[in-house]
Amino acid sequence: MEELYGGMEGGGTKFVCAVGTGLGEIIDETRFPTTTPDETLDRAIVFFKKYTLTAIGLAPFGPLELNQDSPAFGSIASTPKSGWSHADILGRFRAHFNLPMAFDLDVNAAAFGEYHWLPKNRRLFSLVYITIGTGIGAGVIVNGKVVHGLTHPEAGHMRLPHDRHKDPFPGICPFHGDCFEGLANGPAIGKRWGQPADTLPEDHPAWDLEADYIAHAVSNIIYMLSPQRIVLGGGVMERLQLFPLIRLKVREILNDYIASPTMTGSMSGYILPPGLGKRSAILGAMAMAKYLTK
Amino acid sequence: MEELYGGMEGGGTKFVCAVGTGLGEIIDETRFPTTTPDETLDRAIVFFKKYTLTAIGLAPFGPLELNQDSPAFGSIASTPKSGWSHADILGRFRAHFNLPMAFDLDVNAAAFGEYHWLPKNRRLFSLVYITIGTGIGAGVIVNGKVVHGLTHPEAGHMRLPHDRHKDPFPGICPFHGDCFEGLANGPAIGKRWGQPADTLPEDHPAWDLEADYIAHAVSNIIYMLSPQRIVLGGGVMERLQLFPLIRLKVREILNDYIASPTMTGSMSGYILPPGLGKRSAILGAMAMAKYLTK
Repeated sequence: MEELYGGMEGGGTKFVCAVGTGLGEIIDETRFPTTTPDETLDRAIVFFKKYTLTAIGLAPFGPLELNQDSPAFGSIASTPKSGWSHADILGRFRAHFNLPMAFDLDVNAAAFGEYHWLPKNRRLFSLVYITIGTGIGAGVIVNGKVVHGLTHPEAGHMRLPHDRHKDPFPGICPFHGDCFEGLANGPAIGKRWGQPADTLPEDHPAWDLEADYIAHAVSNIIYMLSPQRIVLGGGVMERLQLFPLIRLKVREILNDYIASPTMTGSMSGYILPPGLGKRSAILGAMAMAKYLTK
Repeated sequence: MEELYGGMEGGGTKFVCAVGTGLGEIIDETRFPTTTPDETLDRAIVFFKKYTLTAIGLAPFGPLELNQDSPAFGSIASTPKSGWSHADILGRFRAHFNLPMAFDLDVNAAAFGEYHWLPKNRRLFSLVYITIGTGIGAGVIVNGKVVHGLTHPEAGHMRLPHDRHKDPFPGICPFHGDCFEGLANGPAIGKRWGQPADTLPEDHPAWDLEADYIAHAVSNIIYMLSPQRIVLGGGVMERLQLFPLIRLKVREILNDYIASPTMTGSMSGYILPPGLGKRSAILGAMAMAKYLTK
C-alpha cells in the first residue's frame, strides 16, 4: 500500500486540507472557512483522522513561531486576526496524532511546492515564491531548503521607491504606510482607485502602476539573492497581463547590469505564474510532510 | 606538521595574499597594488610558491563567473576595471598549482570569514556581511553556506526610497543613478557634499543621511532574509558613530513589526562591525581553502 501524507493550508479566510501520495496525487480534499482556532483546527483533525497517514505538513498563515528551541514553536505569533494570536497549531495536532509533522508558513509551503514540482533533472536550487493578494509575502528556497532566520522572511514589508508625484497614495500598511504591501496588495489597489481591484478593467492605469511596484520588489530580490526562478502567485497575479509588464520593467530597472543571459533576455522563463496554479501551498504542505519529516 | 592554507583577497586597488593554518593564524602575508592581471596574479603565485600548501582560497573582486558548469567558471566577468574583463583567475592558478582551490567573490569570502569566526557553539546559520566603501556589496550566508544563484547577489544595486526633497542628489551609479550604491558609497558622499567623505567632520549632516540609506537597505535585507546577524564593514563603516544611528533607524523603520526580541531591542548585538576588522575577506579566503575544498 502506498504511503499517505496529509497537508493543511491554513489561510486567514479558509483552510484547505488534503490527503494523497505526493505532489499531484490527491485522494481526498476538504475546505472550510477560518473561524475560531478550536473549531477550525478540530475540523482539520477530524478530516485527517479518516486516514492512516505517514506524516502531516502544516502550513498556516503567519506570523509563526518557527524557532524549534522556543517553547512557543509551532504556534501563531501575535496577529491582528481575532482569536488566533498564540494559537498552538502544532501542539493541537500532536495531541491527536503520533506522527512526524512538518510546520511552516503557508507561503513557505507554496515555495517548497513550486520547488518540488519541477522534475528532478530540472530542479533548481534557488527559487522565490511571492504571493500578492490580500497580503504580500515571499517564501525563499536556497540550496533546496526553505530559508528561516531569526524569524521568517516578511518580504511584503520591504520599502521601495515611492514617487509621490506619480502616486500620491500614502499606502495602507498599519505599520509602515507605503511599504510594498501597503502600496501594492489587493486592498491598496482598491483604496487607491476607489473600487475593488477585481472590478478594474484590464486597461486601467492601476495595472501599470502595480507592475511598477512589483518589478521594483522583484528587482530587489534579484539583487539580494539572484534566485534561479521567481514565481508570482496570489489573487492580484491572476491578472496575467501583469507578467509581461513586470518582466519589461524588471529589465528596465536592472538595465543590463547583471550579465546573465536570463537577466538580459525576455525573462519569460524566469518570472512565472505558479506551476501548481492556486495549489502551490496545499501541495507544498503535502511535500513538506513527505520530504521534511524524515 | 600542521597543514597550511593560502588565501587571496583580490581587490580593485590592492591584493592581499596570506598563508596560515586557519582563521587568525597567519604565518606570512603580502600586499601589492592591483595592476594588470598578468603582473598582479604572477606576484600572488610567486608568493604562494614559497610554501607547501594544502589548498588555496581565491577571493577576487567581481563580478565573477561562479557557475561551475560554465566554461568561464573561475574568471572575472565584464568589469569597467581596465584589462580585467574575463581575466581567468582560477585557470592561471591551476596552471601553477595542482591543489584543491575555492573561488568566490571577495565580499562572499568576508561573509564566510565572519561566519567562521564565531566559536562553533555560538555559530549562526545565517549572516549577511555588507561592505560599504568605494563600492557596496553583500555576502549572504544561509544554512552555513554562501548564497549563489543565477549569478551572485549584487545587493548594492537595490533600490531604496529616495526623498528628493530631503536629498536632491541624483546618485552616481552609472547603471541605476540612485540605487543604494549610487546614493551611499564613499564617492557618492564625496560628490554630494563637495568634499571627500573621509574629510567630513563627525557632526556633518552627511552621516545622518548616510545612516538613513544604510538603515533602509538593512531593513530590506531583514525583511527578505531574517538573518541572525548583520555585519557592516568597508571604509565608510569605519565611522563607528554610524552604528548606533543605523540601529535606531532600523528600529524606526521596522516599527516593531517583527516580534523578535532582537528586532525590538537595542540591536547592539545584531548590527555589528566585523569581528575580524579589516581582515574578514583575507581570513575568509583562507577559511574557504580550509573548509570548502574537501
